[in-house]
Amino acid sequence: MPAFSDADCGHMARALKLASRGQYSAHPNPMVGCVIVNDGAVVGEGWHQRTGEAHAEINALAAAGDKARGATAYVTLEPCAHHGKTPPCANALADAGIAQVIAAVEDPFPEVAGRGLAALKAAGIETEVGLMRAPAEMLNAGYIARITRGWPRVRVKVAASIDGAIAMKSGESQWISGAEAREDVQHLRARSGAILTGIGTVLADDPSLNVRLPSSTFSGLQPLRVVLDSDLRMPVRAAMLDLSGETLVCCVGQPDTGPLERAGAEVRSFGDAGAKVDVSRVLAELAGRGVNDVLVEAGPGLTGHLLEQKLVDELVIYQAPHIMGSETRTMFQTPSWLRLADRKSLEISDVRRFGDDTRITARVLY
Amino acid sequence: MPAFSDADCGHMARALKLASRGQYSAHPNPMVGCVIVNDGAVVGEGWHQRTGEAHAEINALAAAGDKARGATAYVTLEPCAHHGKTPPCANALADAGIAQVIAAVEDPFPEVAGRGLAALKAAGIETEVGLMRAPAEMLNAGYIARITRGWPRVRVKVAASIDGAIAMKSGESQWISGAEAREDVQHLRARSGAILTGIGTVLADDPSLNVRLPSSTFSGLQPLRVVLDSDLRMPVRAAMLDLSGETLVCCVGQPDTGPLERAGAEVRSFGDAGAKVDVSRVLAELAGRGVNDVLVEAGPGLTGHLLEQKLVDELVIYQAPHIMGSETRTMFQTPSWLRLADRKSLEISDVRRFGDDTRITARVLY
Repeated sequence: MPAFSDADCGHMARALKLASRGQYSAHPNPMVGCVIVNDGAVVGEGWHQRTGEAHAEINALAAAGDKARGATAYVTLEPCAHHGKTPPCANALADAGIAQVIAAVEDPFPEVAGRGLAALKAAGIETEVGLMRAPAEMLNAGYIARITRGWPRVRVKVAASIDGAIAMKSGESQWISGAEAREDVQHLRARSGAILTGIGTVLADDPSLNVRLPSSTFSGLQPLRVVLDSDLRMPVRAAMLDLSGETLVCCVGQPDTGPLERAGAEVRSFGDAGAKVDVSRVLAELAGRGVNDVLVEAGPGLTGHLLEQKLVDELVIYQAPHIMGSETRTMFQTPSWLRLADRKSLEISDVRRFGDDTRITARVLY
Repeated sequence: MPAFSDADCGHMARALKLASRGQYSAHPNPMVGCVIVNDGAVVGEGWHQRTGEAHAEINALAAAGDKARGATAYVTLEPCAHHGKTPPCANALADAGIAQVIAAVEDPFPEVAGRGLAALKAAGIETEVGLMRAPAEMLNAGYIARITRGWPRVRVKVAASIDGAIAMKSGESQWISGAEAREDVQHLRARSGAILTGIGTVLADDPSLNVRLPSSTFSGLQPLRVVLDSDLRMPVRAAMLDLSGETLVCCVGQPDTGPLERAGAEVRSFGDAGAKVDVSRVLAELAGRGVNDVLVEAGPGLTGHLLEQKLVDELVIYQAPHIMGSETRTMFQTPSWLRLADRKSLEISDVRRFGDDTRITARVLY
């Protein structure tokens, strides 16, 4: 790896910051930021806002104008070399006279995957890759997961007391977490391509699972609502069916899907009649639809099943400063974890207060 | 309240710091610190190390010598005015020519309780009380609880996963928390006059419940080990009976206590045969023996019972970065908490990392 300077790091950090502006709008595309520097001075900045619109490099080149000639472009992801919804960025960088491109990480997308860097080199542009690779990979972990392994990043959100209860045994559960935590969940949703829940939660709570953020922050791109519903018990009057955005109901066999479809849902079968919905197939389907990040907001049955299947990448736990005791429901139903050795370690990446609650973000280590 | 200066606060903060040096050795006495200041300069410091030895004021006066004349003494607790194991400090302060005494808080001990301040005034010494009252009360919360309400401060320690499990259903539970957290528990024990557990824990784990800290930090004053054991099932070969320090076994009725007593335990009855040990009576007994702070290290049955009885003042939760799932034991068995309204709010006073674990210290609000 080449030795990058402090200035290089500073420009790439800025490019990452710009990229993150696309967190609510860029998906299914990755978030990308670009900073163009000529003779030590920043002459252009850009980020990718939305699929179908200009890539980060194009926006930065437009801002730089003639000053792009002989300049260095810092890009958080390898520039594209193919004609997608927009022309290839590699060509545009070459045409503008960019002398050097420093990328944080290669784009795993098959039509790019090294070809972008190759095209730049072929055009006589000096290229480097790997500057601030780790944060760049983290920024687009969902996109990278979808492209490289074929299913999205799966994030499970749960609100619980300090003694790990999410509800009373009776089901009584409203407002375990406070208003600030619930507001933060809105941002989690807005960053997700899909929200996954189970029919039990729908029947118990009739949740909306939509994003209700002001248009100043939110792009309006509602995540796909996905309901696992093996026996197709989804009510045609479910609240989410009346909201903007789409709902996918996942069942098994070949039931009569007419009433739900007329109520506005899409219904698809993921398994044989009598079986349970195959969650892996649902996740693959979501990846096929361009979903990078799935947020699971479900009961302990579904979240526990996903953990047992090793399908959960990240937990986001809102811990309320309460104890609820033993007559309660636990966070995750994991009937197959019978021994202490079955427990899963967490790598805690972030701990933050939201009002009285503590949000713990952690990667699950299997 | 008089207006205290920044210098006053600084001297009292120092006195509180000195007082805390007695945390492992002063009990059953309160921790007390004293700073003597003459003409703006600190001329003497002292703290109370151990029952029967000199009080903080006497140590500070000895350090100040002649410079005590005309000086101000900052004391974290009202000076005593009675002949206990040592002569009254009020007399000593007057004899040394102290001009002013500033105390953080009154001593609730019946033989002091305002009489110390009165004696100082009678001797012509100017007195003020209330400087840094809150931290001074917190420092000696156990002592104040014992004197004013007749039972010690009760602190429950528990080690759990992030999803609130303390063991598998099978009982498998070793090392939920890491080495650093277990080392911290040693300090909790050393600050306690008694460690309370249940016979179930003794039979399952045969714990030592003693302090194993180097003599450089620990006074050697082992806390009293207290076992709630209604049916007197305590094995005569229990490990704790062979250790330095005393063990009190609490039963009911009039069973044959001979074998256990010969094994080194003290056995006392706290209730009629057939009943359960009355925990309130045990706590009152401990207060009578001068125990300021009780550390509960027990299973979910006893800790849950104490919570249901509103006898727990503070929780100390070591949270390990794991999830253990549903086939586990929960922190507290609380069969009477059936509704969400039964949950208890916590006032979190401290959150700290010990190795990979997070220690949460919280007051229980009933």
